[in-house]
Amino acid sequence: MRGQPGGDIAFVTQSGAVGSVILDWMAMKGYRVSKFISYGNATDLDESDFIEYLANDKKTNVICLYIEGAKDGRRFYETLKKVSRKKPVIILKAGTTEQGVSAVSSHTGSLAGSTEIFNTVIKQGGAIKASNIEDIFDFARTLSMQPVPRGDRVQIITNGGGFGVLMTDWVIKKKLRLAKPDKSMIKKMKRQFPGYNVIGNPTDLTGDARAEGYRKALEFFLNDKSSDMIAVITLFQTPLLTAEIVDVIAEASRKTSKPIIVISAGGRYTEVLKKSLEEFSIPTFSYPERAANALRALHDYSRNLQK
Amino acid sequence: MRGQPGGDIAFVTQSGAVGSVILDWMAMKGYRVSKFISYGNATDLDESDFIEYLANDKKTNVICLYIEGAKDGRRFYETLKKVSRKKPVIILKAGTTEQGVSAVSSHTGSLAGSTEIFNTVIKQGGAIKASNIEDIFDFARTLSMQPVPRGDRVQIITNGGGFGVLMTDWVIKKKLRLAKPDKSMIKKMKRQFPGYNVIGNPTDLTGDARAEGYRKALEFFLNDKSSDMIAVITLFQTPLLTAEIVDVIAEASRKTSKPIIVISAGGRYTEVLKKSLEEFSIPTFSYPERAANALRALHDYSRNLQK
Repeated sequence: MRGQPGGDIAFVTQSGAVGSVILDWMAMKGYRVSKFISYGNATDLDESDFIEYLANDKKTNVICLYIEGAKDGRRFYETLKKVSRKKPVIILKAGTTEQGVSAVSSHTGSLAGSTEIFNTVIKQGGAIKASNIEDIFDFARTLSMQPVPRGDRVQIITNGGGFGVLMTDWVIKKKLRLAKPDKSMIKKMKRQFPGYNVIGNPTDLTGDARAEGYRKALEFFLNDKSSDMIAVITLFQTPLLTAEIVDVIAEASRKTSKPIIVISAGGRYTEVLKKSLEEFSIPTFSYPERAANALRALHDYSRNLQK
Repeated sequence: MRGQPGGDIAFVTQSGAVGSVILDWMAMKGYRVSKFISYGNATDLDESDFIEYLANDKKTNVICLYIEGAKDGRRFYETLKKVSRKKPVIILKAGTTEQGVSAVSSHTGSLAGSTEIFNTVIKQGGAIKASNIEDIFDFARTLSMQPVPRGDRVQIITNGGGFGVLMTDWVIKKKLRLAKPDKSMIKKMKRQFPGYNVIGNPTDLTGDARAEGYRKALEFFLNDKSSDMIAVITLFQTPLLTAEIVDVIAEASRKTSKPIIVISAGGRYTEVLKKSLEEFSIPTFSYPERAANALRALHDYSRNLQK
């Protein structure tokens, strides 16, 4: 599934406005769209037709859907069940409150239906629920760039203690587990890192971390069987962390079947390095919450496939 | 409280990394910081000292805090209670899960304490709780730019139906109310807008909306007593909506005591217009969820002041 950024994400939307925003955003971020379908009131073809078509489209690896209501609930469910075994289907449903349902009726006129039933259809159908537009972006690029994990155990590597704490909180809040790295490995690692580094989970390489420290840490954690996914926090506000980190992470990602994502936030320099990482199919996030959320989506999809 | 963008936001942080990220971000977005305090392990002065100092700092209108644990809980509570009546205090607490607390102990070594107690201290102390780093950014700029609302009723004006539905959902999910515009006013408005526009809440001016349509709609809703806050959705993917909208919204904002925020998402053109809006002290958001969240913070602060 890992590939070039974009070129493999399809969007099906019942709202022209939501659709154009997504197209604009993809263009700005340099992602390419495989297919784009804006179908409004669905007088002839509906969402199930499009999902079925995209299931067989070789250029599409991930299918995203903005929907206000399904035309034929039973068929929609059967379609999801069949297609989501082949490729991830990400769904944002609008009209999930009584007032939202009423707004839907003056927009596309769809029967927005019960939120509970819709959530069950998404879950039982093996699709991935997006709660907002950001989720669509984050889930689509993560699922199109990274392999699915074997389990839910996350290892965190950071050069900023506060970000490490925040990511730890979000891993737990998103109902993933914090990996417990092997004790004998930790012992071995401690001998190779400065005494003021915190080796564990999170592993905090602290403010003077260089790319080389990340390389060593990644090598240990990628070979350690106690984790399933790696969250790397790289804050470029520290003077010793150079652009070399991009190659270090890209190289690590090539050698492993564990998904790797990067969290990094700051100004323009940070944005440039994040863009480079994405060109190597490493999804990047500004905030721990959004990163943990994307790892959760990867794990959800992996579990659906195992069923 | 309304003023120039930035120049009036102070940051107090226990994490150097979180602090540098915030500084970088503020610089990139063109906000100015009044004071910036990174205090780490707090061996002499602590968070309460800094909050007290900033309470009397004339250049600071909003105080933001990243904290891993309070040194003296009782004093912290008393300080918040006193200061938050003068200016908003926004707090992001890290270490809110068992695993996060343990990560805190290897970072600043603070006693992270019980999350429940901390949440109560924030609430009873009249401060505003940020759940993540994005919340800090969004709450700080919204509270520094816009007046506080009289109540919790939100009026939505949009040119994209889907975004209107999503915003409606989020207003409800964030436990605000959807304003119910006066019926006789709606009747009057309907005569002045094309028949295919949806006049109500949301009011959908549809894809051919021009700045002039927004001007008229804003005039009605700003004078209508049934709403307390206005959320304006401006999607620039439609050909007829020009940069004139910036002046229309800035002008409306000058004439009213109701807070106005803007939701707009897309590519570079959208980003330029959003930046112009922010220069007129109109906070802008890319996504309905984040906008509703910021309105919720405005409302929370308003309620604290009324207590």
